[in-house]
Amino acid sequence: MTENPDLIIDGLQYCNWSRRIFEDMRDGGVTTVHVTISYWEDFRETVARIVEWNRRFEDFADLIAPVRSADDLRRAQAEGRTGIVFGAQNCSPIEDDLGLVRVVHDLGLRFMQLSYNNQSLLATGCYEAEDPGITRMGREAIAEMNRVGLVIDMSHSAERSTLEAIEISERPIAITHANPASFHPALRNKSDRVLAALAESGGMLGLSLYPHHLAGGSGCTLEAFCEMAARTAELIGVERIGIGSDLCQDQPDSVVRWMRNGTWTRALDYGEGSKAQAGFPPQPEWFRCNRDFKGIAQGLRAAGFDAAEVGKIMGGNWLAFFERSFGPQPGRT
Amino acid sequence: MTENPDLIIDGLQYCNWSRRIFEDMRDGGVTTVHVTISYWEDFRETVARIVEWNRRFEDFADLIAPVRSADDLRRAQAEGRTGIVFGAQNCSPIEDDLGLVRVVHDLGLRFMQLSYNNQSLLATGCYEAEDPGITRMGREAIAEMNRVGLVIDMSHSAERSTLEAIEISERPIAITHANPASFHPALRNKSDRVLAALAESGGMLGLSLYPHHLAGGSGCTLEAFCEMAARTAELIGVERIGIGSDLCQDQPDSVVRWMRNGTWTRALDYGEGSKAQAGFPPQPEWFRCNRDFKGIAQGLRAAGFDAAEVGKIMGGNWLAFFERSFGPQPGRT
Repeated sequence: MTENPDLIIDGLQYCNWSRRIFEDMRDGGVTTVHVTISYWEDFRETVARIVEWNRRFEDFADLIAPVRSADDLRRAQAEGRTGIVFGAQNCSPIEDDLGLVRVVHDLGLRFMQLSYNNQSLLATGCYEAEDPGITRMGREAIAEMNRVGLVIDMSHSAERSTLEAIEISERPIAITHANPASFHPALRNKSDRVLAALAESGGMLGLSLYPHHLAGGSGCTLEAFCEMAARTAELIGVERIGIGSDLCQDQPDSVVRWMRNGTWTRALDYGEGSKAQAGFPPQPEWFRCNRDFKGIAQGLRAAGFDAAEVGKIMGGNWLAFFERSFGPQPGRT
Repeated sequence: MTENPDLIIDGLQYCNWSRRIFEDMRDGGVTTVHVTISYWEDFRETVARIVEWNRRFEDFADLIAPVRSADDLRRAQAEGRTGIVFGAQNCSPIEDDLGLVRVVHDLGLRFMQLSYNNQSLLATGCYEAEDPGITRMGREAIAEMNRVGLVIDMSHSAERSTLEAIEISERPIAITHANPASFHPALRNKSDRVLAALAESGGMLGLSLYPHHLAGGSGCTLEAFCEMAARTAELIGVERIGIGSDLCQDQPDSVVRWMRNGTWTRALDYGEGSKAQAGFPPQPEWFRCNRDFKGIAQGLRAAGFDAAEVGKIMGGNWLAFFERSFGPQPGRT
């Protein structure tokens, strides 16, 4: 793999997709984005989301292209189009059918969280009171995800489940969008113990720009974010971090209500928010949309990273991870 | 409710339904049976099972009738037909949608297990290594099941989840098919602690005739079974016990493989069986089919129960439980 200094890869977005957002990506130099296609969607509903994306790939062919491999990413970059990688923030797309792991991979899914905020059939989410770790089906699913090349994402999972997923998985896993809890002690952020295990196994952490994951929330400064990146690089190595903005551009507040509540509860669950702050929080003024990534690169330089390191954080590390993660597991059929 | 000495109610069966089996029920004097319609079936698949049952209600209208209430049961009995109550051995019919609780009740479901052998979205099954208790969605589901009159069944659930379900539920729950672990220490049988909590809350235990739940397995004698019933009545009260035979008449071994493995695993799971004894175990010679319930009634008399007590165990207790459980929760809309 040759040096690719202009890479900008975002480890997670869930925007209200439109031509304007795809133009922002182009104008902002965004190479590829991992986009969420499912939160609570079952298999059939996930397929409906894929059908919608296939239509977008036709309607906006001048701006975006599907990415299922590192080669696809490089091709899209060469064509001046932003690559789109599909992912799910829950295991709902595979329902209770292990055979669907390969099917969703065939349909282009490259990341799947083993749980969202709640207990799933595979693992525990960070808002459950108890975390029993990876379930019987979870162990089967991890082996199957390893086999086909579907990356295990534990961004919303609870501590023990995350540690066990790292240990059980034979391939590196990802936490596509979260920050160290030492930076901001949100339930969604990760302990030093999790980060150390993640790094030791060759996994990736996508640093989040979602205000509830930031010290100071929406008022967090670019400097504070980039200093956190520097401390995290010292802790787990610069090769282990990337960006996972969790950008939800142009989404109405009804979407964050649905993300939190799905169809599982009668009472309103506020997740990371609160009754007083129930909607999407405002983005920091230095990261409002897909045009703002280059400002982060500048901030990282100012925080002491050299140009090569900034290139790795902004995209090189994710590309290397995609390269070794999206294909079948060597030695398994 | 008047005395109804001829009642025979079975708290669980999953047979390979046929005219012969329904004739056995008639010949054996079986008033009503709670039949499993789902193990791993999702909502749509559960509806397909209901459609199959609706066809049976037409094809075998001389022998069987649907039962959704205690009144339905008495009407079927007066007509000389065996009543059929629908139940699910897993929460898969409601998927992750709390709104489906009311929908499946409208479609006739009257029992639903919160988990089968594995972790579910609601609770933990008895073959998981860890049991974190009732999940966030589980608490919501229990309240909704209470509200509409869908009985919580914890037959296959793990200890802590079962104790928490009894505590959280505002209405008595059922363990439709299991025995005391003190009789036979299978993972599927229940501890004295669970049985005491169940009884204290007004719940029901259906004593199982499935060989893996019996001391001595297929060789268990009628006397040993009835002595166990007597000890259980001493422990939790004669009003708290009924029969839940778990009869799987005429099912091929492929069905027990599917019950255990669903679609969640690549490796074969043997559940209560073993590699050497992977299929359905042979029934005890004194309980092979629906013609054999009256022999159990005689055995209970021989074990020291009086006629009124035998009537309660063979059906009276289940009828009283149906009466107070299948309708909406008083005071809730």
